[in-house]
Amino acid sequence: MVVSPPAPFTDRLRQIVGNHVVVDPGVVASYTTDWTGRFVGTSTAVVRPGSVDEVAGVVATCRELGLALVPQGGNTGLVGGGVPLHGEVVLSLGRLQALDPVDPVAGQITAGAGVLLAALQDAARSAGWAYPVDLGSRDSATVGGTVATNAGGVHVLRYGDTRAQVVGLEAVLGTGTTVSHLSGLTKDNTGYHWPSLLCGSEGTLGVVTAARLRLVPPTPFHTVAVLAFATVPDAVAASVEVRRMLPALVACELFLLSGLQLVCSVAPVHTPFEQEYPVYLLTEVADTRDPTDDLAEAVDGLAGLLNVAVATDAGGRADLWRCREAHTEAINTLGPPHKLDVTLPASALSEFVERVPSSVKAVAPEALTWLFGHVGDGNIHVNVTGVAPDDNRVDEVVFTLVAALGGSISAEHGIGTAKRRWLDLSRSASEIELFRTIKHTLDPDNILNPNVLLP
Amino acid sequence: MVVSPPAPFTDRLRQIVGNHVVVDPGVVASYTTDWTGRFVGTSTAVVRPGSVDEVAGVVATCRELGLALVPQGGNTGLVGGGVPLHGEVVLSLGRLQALDPVDPVAGQITAGAGVLLAALQDAARSAGWAYPVDLGSRDSATVGGTVATNAGGVHVLRYGDTRAQVVGLEAVLGTGTTVSHLSGLTKDNTGYHWPSLLCGSEGTLGVVTAARLRLVPPTPFHTVAVLAFATVPDAVAASVEVRRMLPALVACELFLLSGLQLVCSVAPVHTPFEQEYPVYLLTEVADTRDPTDDLAEAVDGLAGLLNVAVATDAGGRADLWRCREAHTEAINTLGPPHKLDVTLPASALSEFVERVPSSVKAVAPEALTWLFGHVGDGNIHVNVTGVAPDDNRVDEVVFTLVAALGGSISAEHGIGTAKRRWLDLSRSASEIELFRTIKHTLDPDNILNPNVLLP
Repeated sequence: MVVSPPAPFTDRLRQIVGNHVVVDPGVVASYTTDWTGRFVGTSTAVVRPGSVDEVAGVVATCRELGLALVPQGGNTGLVGGGVPLHGEVVLSLGRLQALDPVDPVAGQITAGAGVLLAALQDAARSAGWAYPVDLGSRDSATVGGTVATNAGGVHVLRYGDTRAQVVGLEAVLGTGTTVSHLSGLTKDNTGYHWPSLLCGSEGTLGVVTAARLRLVPPTPFHTVAVLAFATVPDAVAASVEVRRMLPALVACELFLLSGLQLVCSVAPVHTPFEQEYPVYLLTEVADTRDPTDDLAEAVDGLAGLLNVAVATDAGGRADLWRCREAHTEAINTLGPPHKLDVTLPASALSEFVERVPSSVKAVAPEALTWLFGHVGDGNIHVNVTGVAPDDNRVDEVVFTLVAALGGSISAEHGIGTAKRRWLDLSRSASEIELFRTIKHTLDPDNILNPNVLLP
Repeated sequence: MVVSPPAPFTDRLRQIVGNHVVVDPGVVASYTTDWTGRFVGTSTAVVRPGSVDEVAGVVATCRELGLALVPQGGNTGLVGGGVPLHGEVVLSLGRLQALDPVDPVAGQITAGAGVLLAALQDAARSAGWAYPVDLGSRDSATVGGTVATNAGGVHVLRYGDTRAQVVGLEAVLGTGTTVSHLSGLTKDNTGYHWPSLLCGSEGTLGVVTAARLRLVPPTPFHTVAVLAFATVPDAVAASVEVRRMLPALVACELFLLSGLQLVCSVAPVHTPFEQEYPVYLLTEVADTRDPTDDLAEAVDGLAGLLNVAVATDAGGRADLWRCREAHTEAINTLGPPHKLDVTLPASALSEFVERVPSSVKAVAPEALTWLFGHVGDGNIHVNVTGVAPDDNRVDEVVFTLVAALGGSISAEHGIGTAKRRWLDLSRSASEIELFRTIKHTLDPDNILNPNVLLP
């Protein structure tokens, strides 16, 4: 535990941000615990700058004083990357609320770090465009947080992750230097692409203060189909095939009978079929015209397909999605789950899904394993109930299996503090050394999120 | 000019790569001049490693000996970034020819740096996929070169630049360290995204030895339309509209009547219309089913549209494309052109097209300016004839105008040696300082392309 910094540091910060230094312990507490309650930190102060210059001032002052900072957006992370677990000062970016009008000619928008993802999506929609990153936490997650963590979500398959949307960035590096390149030119080969480096760096290299983001044409016609299979390999093979045949595929989600049964036991849902099947694949196609025929054509003749339920109207689509999306809350009724978020190569997905429940049982016989996720990206959410949420035995056995199968220990949640001791399962020693070198270059005094990402 | 290195260095290099050190001046000469003849360098040796370990050995040895290296792929660059203008040793990656089979489950392929772009495209096509980057120099350009320069080309509009295709990379840094992350997982938030940093770094940070690249579903149905307009603003506005309405738009190219007339004067082409129009927009849509109706619908009602020529068959499409693609060779008949490749914000494109010919004339009254390019990306190729190809007056006046309008002095060609003195027109002092810091970190002895990119 870091010793609390000397009192006058708050005076220094007030010289920069005025009254926006929070020291009331009751208010500070709302910034020091994550929303899941798994990560509980402490801090003596939350500083809330209102402009990029104020952010630069705060970073420079903290560097001078040797005070570590934890940048924080909507505090919706899942790996403890935005929680001051070692008494760091919280640097909240919530006041950076500037949201430019959509640039209708470029199809882009510039947003401050504190803009909510949902507000960004609304602004795009109102202007006849769409922002393609979407997450369940859209009403709390911020632009800065989604950029710093390279947020994924349900549409990565079609539009890529957040990094793929970032066409420009403004940030304050750990050195205190502000860098900005918000012109948003699609083609711009004039130097090193530092925005990509900061995107996904989890606040360890610089503080994202604004982003220029690409928008995509809206696709008003949606069709959802749930496909039923007898085996996971059949479902995985089908996911590969529909991905290749349907450029307009926006989602391809796997869930299993056990998960659907749990969902049904918790709340009434419209199940896709009267009969039960072992494995389900939810696919969604979105296009500028009705894609139902394309979907039907792509699905027709898929090996091992046992049944199909199609919905084109909003209500029917929502019913089908509910079967998948209700997994999280249904699992939560069993107690706080141990949540892991991993990627497997498509060729190893089936083996992983088959092996992981017994691997977990081997170290935690009382555990139940729930598997679902964005199978079109190889991304599986592993939820384990019946064990403590921070049970390291589960981490170790699952991550070791992931690594053995050539996967990644973090698909979209990041490394944070939760996974950094396992980083070497996904990254080589020379890569981690490269990370350290880059970190030292951009944050030489190690004041930005010093306890995040690197082991 | 660097003094020639002492003779024994070639012995050291032969210990690593065997006979693959070229010192015969006649053979070396083929590596020291670019294909346009604009950049002529000198070198005492070309070293051609056959594996990543040999590359690492060469880099480490050259670092020890203080010898600068110029990495070279197909030598198809346009800004002198692969030419040893200061006597550097040429590091040719042409022998890194490993090309894995397409991974049909992931829809990805791993290719050595020396694999030709055309060979990569063929391999993808044979396996039922497509590699979405395409350039005129596809039969000479290499995977390593396209990654190192973040090559663009005609399909950036739909699929992004080369950086957007790179899902994994293997490289030897300027330190001599090999880093590799070729697993190709779509979602993998486990650390800093160094592949994006190396992509587009023009060989100044590391030597790309292999890349894992995403493939896309093939889109066998193509429709091309040339649209005629009276004014550039009408054409630009139309390009914005079709881009928003047609997710399947793969190309959106501008050319002008003066260019078409020059093309027609050099060789017979099938012009799209009997009548002449001041401005043309070539659009191509590619999809998994016939997109002709979609294109017709999107075009219908475009403001200022004077005429449309549509082609769905291969011959007709090629005829329409020829009007645009023949610009380069037609312009070359007027003598070696001064070639500039810039991006403008879409909102400033019309003003740029209108102002640049008179701006050039003001400093070079004898000059003719030819404008065409990938207007859907804001990317205009400015060709100036009637002046020396390296006439700095032209650079200065065009780049200054580009910067004043918020554009980029290099869209897809990079900075190389040709544009580095102008880099500060597109990048701020703090960004250039950041570039220098990153360069120093990854190439501390400044042995990789020391005369490229940074001013």
